[in-house]
Amino acid sequence: MTSKDDSSMSSNDPTSPQQRIAEAFDPQLLESAGHRLVDLLGEHFRLVESSSKRVLNWTDPPTNVETAASFLRPDFRSNLTERFAELVQEMLSRGHNLHDPRYIGHQVPAPVPIAGLFDAVGAVTNQVMAIYEMGPWASSIEHAMVCELGQQVGWNEDQFSGLITHGGSLANLTALTTARNVSLGDAWEVGVARNGPPPVMLVHADAHYGVARSAGILGIGTNNIVSVGLDERRRMDPNQLDENLCDLRQKGHPIVAVVACACATPIGAFDPLNDISDVCQRHEVWLHVDAAHGGSACLSKRYKHLVDGLERVDSLIWDAHKMMFVPALCAFVFYRNKEHRFETFRQNAPYLFDPSAPGMSDYDSGLRTVECTKRAAAFGLWGVWSMFGKQLFEDMVDITFDLGRLFYEKLAAASDFETFHEPECNIVMFRYRPTEIRALSTDQIGAIQLEIRRRLIQSGQFYIVQNKFDGYGALRVTIINPLTDASHLEELMDAIREIGKIVIDEAK
Amino acid sequence: MTSKDDSSMSSNDPTSPQQRIAEAFDPQLLESAGHRLVDLLGEHFRLVESSSKRVLNWTDPPTNVETAASFLRPDFRSNLTERFAELVQEMLSRGHNLHDPRYIGHQVPAPVPIAGLFDAVGAVTNQVMAIYEMGPWASSIEHAMVCELGQQVGWNEDQFSGLITHGGSLANLTALTTARNVSLGDAWEVGVARNGPPPVMLVHADAHYGVARSAGILGIGTNNIVSVGLDERRRMDPNQLDENLCDLRQKGHPIVAVVACACATPIGAFDPLNDISDVCQRHEVWLHVDAAHGGSACLSKRYKHLVDGLERVDSLIWDAHKMMFVPALCAFVFYRNKEHRFETFRQNAPYLFDPSAPGMSDYDSGLRTVECTKRAAAFGLWGVWSMFGKQLFEDMVDITFDLGRLFYEKLAAASDFETFHEPECNIVMFRYRPTEIRALSTDQIGAIQLEIRRRLIQSGQFYIVQNKFDGYGALRVTIINPLTDASHLEELMDAIREIGKIVIDEAK
Repeated sequence: MTSKDDSSMSSNDPTSPQQRIAEAFDPQLLESAGHRLVDLLGEHFRLVESSSKRVLNWTDPPTNVETAASFLRPDFRSNLTERFAELVQEMLSRGHNLHDPRYIGHQVPAPVPIAGLFDAVGAVTNQVMAIYEMGPWASSIEHAMVCELGQQVGWNEDQFSGLITHGGSLANLTALTTARNVSLGDAWEVGVARNGPPPVMLVHADAHYGVARSAGILGIGTNNIVSVGLDERRRMDPNQLDENLCDLRQKGHPIVAVVACACATPIGAFDPLNDISDVCQRHEVWLHVDAAHGGSACLSKRYKHLVDGLERVDSLIWDAHKMMFVPALCAFVFYRNKEHRFETFRQNAPYLFDPSAPGMSDYDSGLRTVECTKRAAAFGLWGVWSMFGKQLFEDMVDITFDLGRLFYEKLAAASDFETFHEPECNIVMFRYRPTEIRALSTDQIGAIQLEIRRRLIQSGQFYIVQNKFDGYGALRVTIINPLTDASHLEELMDAIREIGKIVIDEAK
Repeated sequence: MTSKDDSSMSSNDPTSPQQRIAEAFDPQLLESAGHRLVDLLGEHFRLVESSSKRVLNWTDPPTNVETAASFLRPDFRSNLTERFAELVQEMLSRGHNLHDPRYIGHQVPAPVPIAGLFDAVGAVTNQVMAIYEMGPWASSIEHAMVCELGQQVGWNEDQFSGLITHGGSLANLTALTTARNVSLGDAWEVGVARNGPPPVMLVHADAHYGVARSAGILGIGTNNIVSVGLDERRRMDPNQLDENLCDLRQKGHPIVAVVACACATPIGAFDPLNDISDVCQRHEVWLHVDAAHGGSACLSKRYKHLVDGLERVDSLIWDAHKMMFVPALCAFVFYRNKEHRFETFRQNAPYLFDPSAPGMSDYDSGLRTVECTKRAAAFGLWGVWSMFGKQLFEDMVDITFDLGRLFYEKLAAASDFETFHEPECNIVMFRYRPTEIRALSTDQIGAIQLEIRRRLIQSGQFYIVQNKFDGYGALRVTIINPLTDASHLEELMDAIREIGKIVIDEAK
C-alpha cells in the first residue's frame, strides 16, 4: 500500500508508542512533506500575486471553527504525506491572501516570502533563547540586528541597547515598564501605590490602544492617562504638552512617561520629535515613541526626515513586521541609554543566569524581555537583509509611501470621494461621498462606508479597513504590499463606486 | 550566468526599485529556495537524530555576533538561491540541535519536525489575527484548539474560555492581569494605588520567576509577594497557605491571587490542587495554576492523576511548546468561568472592533491577548493533532515521564551519584558525588557540578542544565526529547564521570 521509495508513509496503527514517535520524527516524512509544501506554496503565490484568487476568504466564524475542529479526528488509514498536503491546501484555501496586490488593509504587510523560509528553519529545529547557550546563533542574530537598526536610528554602537519581542503592544509594554521603574524609582519592588497624587502618563490622543492598555496593566490605571492635544494635522502639539506638564508638576503628579507617535495609527501622522524632545528634556521626563510603523523611515533617504529627532528619545519601538516586510511578530524595543536595559525586571533566576559564566548578561535575552523562552523572531529579517541588503527595505518604504501620496491625489481629484488629510506616509483615510448622499447626516454617510467595506472585503475583491474620522465611519487603506501599483488603486475606487451604488440604492 | 530554467536567479544590480521588489517576491525564488531548504533540513535531521553532530554548537558571544553581522553586507553578484542555501547552512551549523537524543536540557522540546512546516505556512503567507477578519482561518484554528484542550482539562465547551499567547511568562501575566482586575475591582481604571495595606499575591516558593515578574509589572510590587511554604516534596502546603490567608485577611491585605504549580520548575513537583482549591474556595480568592509544563499530563491516562483538581481552578496556563512538542511559542491561558474573558483589558479600539459586525467579540482574539496583531501560533499544534491524533501526544508524555523515573532509578543505584527527589515527571535533579569528593563542602561540590556541566555542554556531547538544591549547584535534566532512551542516559552518566574525573583532578 505504501512504499518507502516514494517517501510516503502510512500510520497504519503502529504497534508501540516508540514506533508512532519514530514515524512522526522520521526525516523522510519531513522531506516528503516539505517538498509538497514548497510546490503548494509556489503554485499558491503565482495565483495570489496575479490576483487570481480572492483576497480574503470569508467564512463566518462558527462554520470555520467547526471545520477546523473536524480535522482533529484523523483517519489513521491515510498516507501521512497526502494527509499533510490535504491540510496545507485547506490552510491556503481558507486564509487571507496578503500577497494579492489588492490587499491594502491593516498595518500588517505582504512580507518578502522567503523571510518565512528563514523563520521555518527556526520553527522546525526550534531555535529559542532566554539564555545565550540555549540559542547561541538565534541570540547572536538578534544582537546583530539590534546593533544594525540602532545605528540606522543614529546611535553609536556602544551607547544604546535593544531587544526583540512579540509585537508592538508587548514592545510598548516593555519600554513603558522600564520608564515606570526609572521614573517612579521603586515601583518594581513596592508597587505603584504611594502617597499623594497618582502617577500619570501623557499620551498622544491618537495613540494605539496598546499604550492605554499598558497603563492598565502597569497598575497606573487608564484613568490616569492624560491625553495630549493635537495640532491640525493630528500631530502632538508641543505647546499643549508643555502646558500639561506644567500643570501636572504643579499638582504633584509623578510623571511616568510622555508617549509620542511616529506615526499615529489613524492617518499616519508623525509627531515633531525634536520639539517634543525639547519639552521633555526641559521637564526631565521620559520620552517614549511608538515608531512601530514609521521607524522604517530611517531606512529611506527620501523619508528619513519624518523621524528627525528619533535619536533623542529615551525609548522607542519599531516593528520589523510592519514596514520592514517580514512575517509577524518581530518588534524591536530600543533604549537610547544602555544603562536602562536592566531596569525593566530587577531580578533573575538562579538556574538560568549563571554566575559561573560571567559577561553573559548582555547576551541572555531573558533578562530584558517579557518572554522567558523566546523563539528566534529575527531569522526572517536577518535572512532578507543578508540576501538583498538594506536597499530592498529602502525600496519598499519608498514605493509604498510614494503610492500613499498618489492615491490621495487620485481621491482628491475625484468628485465622489472625500479626503481628510495629506498623507505623510502610506496610510490614507477617506470616504465615498457621491452627490446623491451629500445631504445625508455624517452619521448616515459613516454607516454607508462601513456597509460598503463589509461587502467589499467579503466579496474577496479588495481588503481595506475602516476607522472613524471626527467620530464617524470612514474608509482607510495602508499600502503595505509592495506589489500594489496605481492601477490597483484605480480599480479599488471603481469597486467602491460599484458596491456604493448598490448600498445607496438599497438605503433609499 | 543564470538561467530561468534551473530556477536560479541573480540580483545583478536590477535597475529599478520595482525590479528589485519583483525579484524578492518572485514565486520561482520561493520554490527554488524552498526545495533547497527541505533538502538541507532532511540531511540535517538524519545526522542530528543519529547523534552524528554536536548537540550544542558553542561559540562565545562576541565571535558569534560578529559572524552574524558579517552577512549583512551581501555580495550582489551571488546567485540568490545559492546565497539562500549558504545562509541556511550557516544557521543549521551554528544552532542548538534539540533533536539529538542527547539534548535533555531546558523545558524546551525537540518538537515534532513537521509542526514547523505547518508554522511555515503561517510565516510565508503571514497569517495573523487580532480581529477575526484579518485571519479567519488562523482565528478558527486557535478557537478549535482552545476548545479541544479545555475539554481535556475537564470542562464543558460552553463554560470556559481560552486564548493563545507568546509564551508561558506572557500567559501568566495575562491570567494574573485578569485576576488582579477581578480581585481588586477597579485596578484597571484607577490603578493599584489604594488606601490601607497593599494588595498581595501568594505564590508557590519554587514558582517560575515569571510569576514574580508579573507582580512587578502589574504594579503590585515584588515585595508584596508572599511565598507559600512547601512540604517535604516541595509541593505547596495547603495548611501553610491557609495560615497565610488567615493572617493576610486579618491584616486587611487585598488578595490578588494564589499561584500554584503543576509542576514547579526545579524538581517538577505537582501541587495538590484539590486541597489548594478547597482552601482558596473557603477564603474566596482567585486560584491560578502555572501548568505550563504539566498541563499535558491531562492527555495521558497514566499521568492524568498528577493534575487532579485542575478543572477547579480559576485560571491556568499550559504551554503546548513544552510537553506537546510543538515549536516555541504556543502558550494557552484558560479561564474556568467564561465570564472573566473580557476582564483582562476593559477597552477597545474603534477601528479594530466593529459594532457593525456583531457577535465577533468571541472570535476577535485581540480583545483577550496582550498582543494586538498575533501570529498564527497554533498551526503546528493543529497540524500535528490533525495528522496523528491525540494518541501521539499521550505517547510522548508517557515515554518521557517514564524515562524520568528510570533515570532516577539508575542514579539512585549508582554509588557515585546523589539524588534528591523521586521524580513525578520527566525532570530529575542530581549531583555527581564520587567518594573522593564526599569530604568537600557542599559549596565546593556544587561548584564542581557547574564546572562539569559547562565543559560537558561546550564539548557538544550532551546538553543538560544546572540549578540549585538547598542553595548549592546541582545538575538537572528534563527528558523532553521523545527520541531519548535509556542508553543515552547511561552514556550521560559515563560522560559526567569522565569529565568529572578531570575537573576533580584539576581541583586537587
